[in-house]
Amino acid sequence: MDAASIVNVIRRADGEEDDKDPALQELYSSWALFILLVLLIGALLTSYYVQSKKIRAIHETVISVFVGMVVGLIIRVSPGLIIQNMVSFHSTYFFNVLLPPIILNSGYELHQSNFFRNIGTILTFAFAGTFISAVTLGILVYIFSFLNFENFHMSFVEALSMGATLSATDPVTVLAIFNSYKVDQKLYTIIFGESILNDAVAIVMFETLQQFQGKQLHLFTLFNGITIFIITFFISLLIGVSVGLMTALVLKYSYLRRYPHIESCIILLMAYASYFFSNGCHMSGVVSLLFCGITLKHYAFYNMSYKAKLSTKYVFRVLAQLSENFIFIYLGMSLFTQVDLVYKPIFILITTIAVTASRYMNVFPLSKLLNKFHRQRDGTLIDHIPYSYQMMLFWAGLRGAVGVALAAGFEGENAQTLKATTLVVVVLSLIIFGGTTSRMLEILNIETGVAADVDSDTEFSMLPWQATADYELENGAMELSNASLDSSVPDRPVVPEDYEHAGVLPEASPSKKISNTFEQYQKAAGAFNHFFHASRDDQAQWFSRFDEEVIKPVLLERDVSRSSPKK
Amino acid sequence: MDAASIVNVIRRADGEEDDKDPALQELYSSWALFILLVLLIGALLTSYYVQSKKIRAIHETVISVFVGMVVGLIIRVSPGLIIQNMVSFHSTYFFNVLLPPIILNSGYELHQSNFFRNIGTILTFAFAGTFISAVTLGILVYIFSFLNFENFHMSFVEALSMGATLSATDPVTVLAIFNSYKVDQKLYTIIFGESILNDAVAIVMFETLQQFQGKQLHLFTLFNGITIFIITFFISLLIGVSVGLMTALVLKYSYLRRYPHIESCIILLMAYASYFFSNGCHMSGVVSLLFCGITLKHYAFYNMSYKAKLSTKYVFRVLAQLSENFIFIYLGMSLFTQVDLVYKPIFILITTIAVTASRYMNVFPLSKLLNKFHRQRDGTLIDHIPYSYQMMLFWAGLRGAVGVALAAGFEGENAQTLKATTLVVVVLSLIIFGGTTSRMLEILNIETGVAADVDSDTEFSMLPWQATADYELENGAMELSNASLDSSVPDRPVVPEDYEHAGVLPEASPSKKISNTFEQYQKAAGAFNHFFHASRDDQAQWFSRFDEEVIKPVLLERDVSRSSPKK
Repeated sequence: MDAASIVNVIRRADGEEDDKDPALQELYSSWALFILLVLLIGALLTSYYVQSKKIRAIHETVISVFVGMVVGLIIRVSPGLIIQNMVSFHSTYFFNVLLPPIILNSGYELHQSNFFRNIGTILTFAFAGTFISAVTLGILVYIFSFLNFENFHMSFVEALSMGATLSATDPVTVLAIFNSYKVDQKLYTIIFGESILNDAVAIVMFETLQQFQGKQLHLFTLFNGITIFIITFFISLLIGVSVGLMTALVLKYSYLRRYPHIESCIILLMAYASYFFSNGCHMSGVVSLLFCGITLKHYAFYNMSYKAKLSTKYVFRVLAQLSENFIFIYLGMSLFTQVDLVYKPIFILITTIAVTASRYMNVFPLSKLLNKFHRQRDGTLIDHIPYSYQMMLFWAGLRGAVGVALAAGFEGENAQTLKATTLVVVVLSLIIFGGTTSRMLEILNIETGVAADVDSDTEFSMLPWQATADYELENGAMELSNASLDSSVPDRPVVPEDYEHAGVLPEASPSKKISNTFEQYQKAAGAFNHFFHASRDDQAQWFSRFDEEVIKPVLLERDVSRSSPKK
Repeated sequence: MDAASIVNVIRRADGEEDDKDPALQELYSSWALFILLVLLIGALLTSYYVQSKKIRAIHETVISVFVGMVVGLIIRVSPGLIIQNMVSFHSTYFFNVLLPPIILNSGYELHQSNFFRNIGTILTFAFAGTFISAVTLGILVYIFSFLNFENFHMSFVEALSMGATLSATDPVTVLAIFNSYKVDQKLYTIIFGESILNDAVAIVMFETLQQFQGKQLHLFTLFNGITIFIITFFISLLIGVSVGLMTALVLKYSYLRRYPHIESCIILLMAYASYFFSNGCHMSGVVSLLFCGITLKHYAFYNMSYKAKLSTKYVFRVLAQLSENFIFIYLGMSLFTQVDLVYKPIFILITTIAVTASRYMNVFPLSKLLNKFHRQRDGTLIDHIPYSYQMMLFWAGLRGAVGVALAAGFEGENAQTLKATTLVVVVLSLIIFGGTTSRMLEILNIETGVAADVDSDTEFSMLPWQATADYELENGAMELSNASLDSSVPDRPVVPEDYEHAGVLPEASPSKKISNTFEQYQKAAGAFNHFFHASRDDQAQWFSRFDEEVIKPVLLERDVSRSSPKK
């Protein structure tokens, strides 16, 4: 988003306040912001062009990184240090301005029924997987530093921190590719869930490790660390969920929905408040914001006015999109504009290999374990996670901006080396893995074009006369597969181009059509479910029952969802 | 918006980077942002409470100012200067972060047909009115300074600058009140148009005057100044319109609408780019952004996908709402936290009186002139602007944040006095006039509750199958009065509470209903038009004809608006 650069510009302007003309600063800042906006527009237009021409090897984020690199190079070779300092990576902007919209939007756009159906798998990869990855990576890096090439030595805590830093996978790139391909819903959900949760896990792990910096490690420290980790994670989760529930209750017991502008603003502000409150309490803002987003969508959403539903959705999405593009441009630029970085080529090479190895050690053994467990429980012979999924999970482990932002927290004599290495490895993984994901999908023969990512809250389904059907859907048909949702528009061939219309375009007589469609949908989904999902049960049945019978009646505005528009 | 305070916080954090722990700064900034968000939520909730309890003497902006003042006072009396410096008013944040969303949203939400119908009246008040106001105010203030009370002397250019500064009326407060009251559409449009255009005029005037600072004034300077003013204004206008047209063309000749996320982001970024580009060229960003917004809505809007229409609308609106609330909190705080201000009570009193007098000199003579002109042209006896309207126009002249932001540009020995005076006068006018506007409406017997502000682009009318009707509406029925738009929901009593629903809730069979409604609407509007608007002709007929016959066919995507959803 442009706010970060505004920050830069203003900071710069302020620093020079004493020795320069304010009008001139005003002018500088205008040009700087203008150039930034042009960059963003350029990246977006290129990404549009690439998408519309179906050039699938290149992706938006990769383009943004390249655009950033080019501009960074230009800035580097041109004289003067002012701009160079202005555009180097600052973790403060990243954590306060750029990251929150993305996390909030992830939580808000999460496909809840799919997420909860695969919650066991997702949590296994997010917690055990990230832990394995961080430890493997840490050990490999530590061994390298022990061999003392490049005259470089690091402590074990530093090595583990580096492992945590580089275990945060990027939730943006792969998902964007998956979205444009309409990849199989189960695979999508697992990768989505893993990649957003493991950011949170990696951040908490990194912060926990920082507390042991410089101390002697022994077994007690390990337990201590794990305790801190668990407490931090769950208190953060609690903060996020509480804020979300509070918002739902405020919306239920007030008439805020009569003033949709105020309503939307309050929802946005509440979510942000959970983030900063959590950070202020030494907890993890990312975890809080993520679960606040999920809670908002799961409860508060049903108490919102129609306008607020739409506006929160769009505002979150547009802010997230801008942040994402900006982050990648920023990463690309930093590669050239951060002058104090220390590049050690062999270390970078080793780390890149270690990152790949640690991802391997994480995905394949855990998948085997999960398959074994599922086969034992269900007595079926079908793999829960087939080989092609495993390979794709491995491939989807590219690293993103969260790692770079965490690396900014490194201190001590190795700091600049570690920062440089992280930055290069992240950019490399984005280019290598991000650039080949679509090809990999083809090689692995993974089902695409399944039109599965129909969000149950398109503009059409959010119309007031749809509220009842929606509510019923959420209540009664939670275990239906959304993969069959496109049966509601059976007479339209769903090709990616007119996909957007298909979800939105209602038929002549919506209210009647809806009930038909709903029955049809239930039938189709039921059949589909039996045929396809016989082996995978709802992994969170206990939760959805508790949710239906206890939580929802307390939190949801019955008369909003039931009675309002039944003319 | 919170971005500005992020700026503050980061700036602060950065300034202290050398002597403090970064983790601690991170913590400080989290708390600062959290407190800011809580303030915003508090202001919004109070405003909701006041609105829902129908307490009409107090308004949202006034509440925000008070909230800000209380917090400012607390900060002032508490020890330590860090926070105090952090929250004082910085014009850079105001112009780069807070103002653009408001201006863009004003342009985008402008009711075009009403605006163009009253364009003559609006331009008269905006140009001649602001000029009269600035000169009157300048002369009065200059006379005072000549009398040399309070040991204070200022140059005539300074006095005129002060006049320009305090001639920018606030477009937020009055319009919000008018909106909640559903005031007569014509009065609303005139005040809306005047207040947003006169900000632009005042800014350009102020900047033009700054170029003559310290120079000797003579007749030639006056002409020179007027020339600069006109050139600046029209080049800025041209920049804004060009960017808007460019966006319309890009949308027409690309398939961006297949990727609505990218589309929405690009529209937002283009608008901001026009603002910063214009500022960078020493032109007026506000004028550019305003006309860019208008052009986007008038042309580009029809080339957008349904999702982009909705998301741009909501994103602009939510950002504007947050900015507005933040600005008023900020103004309130600044009253106590800007320690270097010099308060001169008599000068403040005189300026307050002069502000009122200059508004009087602006509104009443110009209204008489307009009435005379209209009576001569049309031969009718009905006043174009009746006395009650004139009085309301006078009353609606409260001053806003633009003035304070402009005042930040004062330099020299009087700077602190002028800044303090502007700030106090603005806050006073907000409290006095803003607090009594609703009472004034009652006293003047101005028609309220006319449900006139039906925007022709509610979610319902933006649905794809509505596009044709919309297009036709814009094309053929431009001179229809929107005051009768509520005839499309004739069987629903339109009371303010369910107003929001009335605009959104479609009937059972929309596509059929629409055509009926459309005919009905045309008839009703036609009759209404004849009855009520016989005396006021379309003030921009030449433009709307040119627009229909030349511009629209070039810019608009025929097949989007005509053919797409005719099932």
